[in-house]
Amino acid sequence: MTDMAMNMLALGKQILASQPFSLLLGARITELAAGRAVLEIPIDEPLKQQHGFVHGGVISYVADNALGFAGVSVLGESIVTSEFKINYVRPAIGDRLVARATVVHCGRRQAVCRCDVFVATEEGERLCATSQGTITLQGGGASA
Amino acid sequence: MTDMAMNMLALGKQILASQPFSLLLGARITELAAGRAVLEIPIDEPLKQQHGFVHGGVISYVADNALGFAGVSVLGESIVTSEFKINYVRPAIGDRLVARATVVHCGRRQAVCRCDVFVATEEGERLCATSQGTITLQGGGASA
Amino acid sequence: MTDMAMNMLALGKQILASQPFSLLLGARITELAAGRAVLEIPIDEPLKQQHGFVHGGVISYVADNALGFAGVSVLGESIVTSEFKINYVRPAIGDRLVARATVVHCGRRQAVCRCDVFVATEEGERLCATSQGTITLQGGGASA
Amino acid sequence: MTDMAMNMLALGKQILASQPFSLLLGARITELAAGRAVLEIPIDEPLKQQHGFVHGGVISYVADNALGFAGVSVLGESIVTSEFKINYVRPAIGDRLVARATVVHCGRRQAVCRCDVFVATEEGERLCATSQGTITLQGGGASA
Repeated sequence: MTDMAMNMLALGKQILASQPFSLLLGARITELAAGRAVLEIPIDEPLKQQHGFVHGGVISYVADNALGFAGVSVLGESIVTSEFKINYVRPAIGDRLVARATVVHCGRRQAVCRCDVFVATEEGERLCATSQGTITLQGGGASA
Repeated sequence: MTDMAMNMLALGKQILASQPFSLLLGARITELAAGRAVLEIPIDEPLKQQHGFVHGGVISYVADNALGFAGVSVLGESIVTSEFKINYVRPAIGDRLVARATVVHCGRRQAVCRCDVFVATEEGERLCATSQGTITLQGGGASA
Repeated sequence: MTDMAMNMLALGKQILASQPFSLLLGARITELAAGRAVLEIPIDEPLKQQHGFVHGGVISYVADNALGFAGVSVLGESIVTSEFKINYVRPAIGDRLVARATVVHCGRRQAVCRCDVFVATEEGERLCATSQGTITLQGGGASA
Repeated sequence: MTDMAMNMLALGKQILASQPFSLLLGARITELAAGRAVLEIPIDEPLKQQHGFVHGGVISYVADNALGFAGVSVLGESIVTSEFKINYVRPAIGDRLVARATVVHCGRRQAVCRCDVFVATEEGERLCATSQGTITLQGGGASA
């Protein structure tokens, strides 16, 4: 990794470490580079719903946050998620969630991003959800 | 409340209590009736992001889950969230989140629902996000 | 109607009349007031798909455009639709489409709006689709 | 092309030719294979809005329809679009729209698909919108 790449990932780790909710869920950022971000969450009992799968809310959290970090990589750190949509395609059963987000288009104030969420087991990764949303420079939208 | 209404809310409380992730977040269900559901979450430090607002992932969780309970009220308890979209409209700062979901249309296998998420303070409730999604009878879609 | 209300509807008619695609589809604007807009389209053969229902593309057009006019009512006429999502809930068979849009939240640069699309027959109106989206002041997003 | 590939594209052309609305807009299908579909529309005056760009409704139509054809390629021809979301990223100015859809995940009754819409000029293609949606076997959802 170049210095700049290391710095961007270091920035991502710092932001994530300052989010109490991300700490509560055990999220880690494993990649942050111009136009893409990868977040991971080890799957643990408290993250599940009544049937033993990862709760959809954990999946939407990691998608939302990975979309946001993809936005950070092109717009800087003062961003908010304006909106996103997610399709759940398969129950998440496995060892950890891996959310891979990319920037589809970046304008002056907004980036449209996509994020695929996979569940990883010893056999590999399987897609469990896919999402698309808008990341906006602070002042134009809301939450994160 | 009629017996049937009490029973439906009791069912909702039982389902919520069986979701480890909902317990982790401190979610409560305060209403469950044919075509609508209300969930609440007291706002606590671990639910926040780096600027002191409620993390967007908490808001998307409560929207997703309230949409699901609205679906339960018309389709029964074997449901999954197939997909939803959410727009964040205001940072959530306050005492608790209140997610009010309603069924817009219910077919044989799917219900299209909406959920507004408010942040409540002593002065009242303010909208912080609005969402729309599809709840599907298990076997036709995914997570929850 | 007050003069101001008449002026706003007149502005809406003028904008709609300047959109060749809206003329091609026969769209009419029947209401435009602060925070809401109503568009209508008489259902004619060329607007259908292979089963005799109104094509989904006509329904998404009228939802998109009604969302945009709701945005115009609060942000002025220099707006674009940044994004929207739509759920189709029933095949559209009838005399005309009626799209009723409202503003859910308006910030400085963006309005989050909803639009229900009904199909009208002699017996009344039935919901055929529901949508939610973001209307943005020009310079922050895209199309329309 | 193999016979099967030719047959699938021929089926796509036949379906498109039976949709009066697609004929009105001049849509053509140029590719239909397992898991993907490409639709194109020459850009003509009647498809524009007041600023001379292609109307968003045309773009949402072609996205919706390309998503549907991607669904046809894996689920067969009795499908409906249940829902989709679209982000517009750039005004569409050019010679023709090219909508490229792919299947992200296919279950027994539903396929989750994505579609990027490009505007083509002599210099090449530029992204103008991106969309994601659910295609459902008829009987489980709605329009198209």
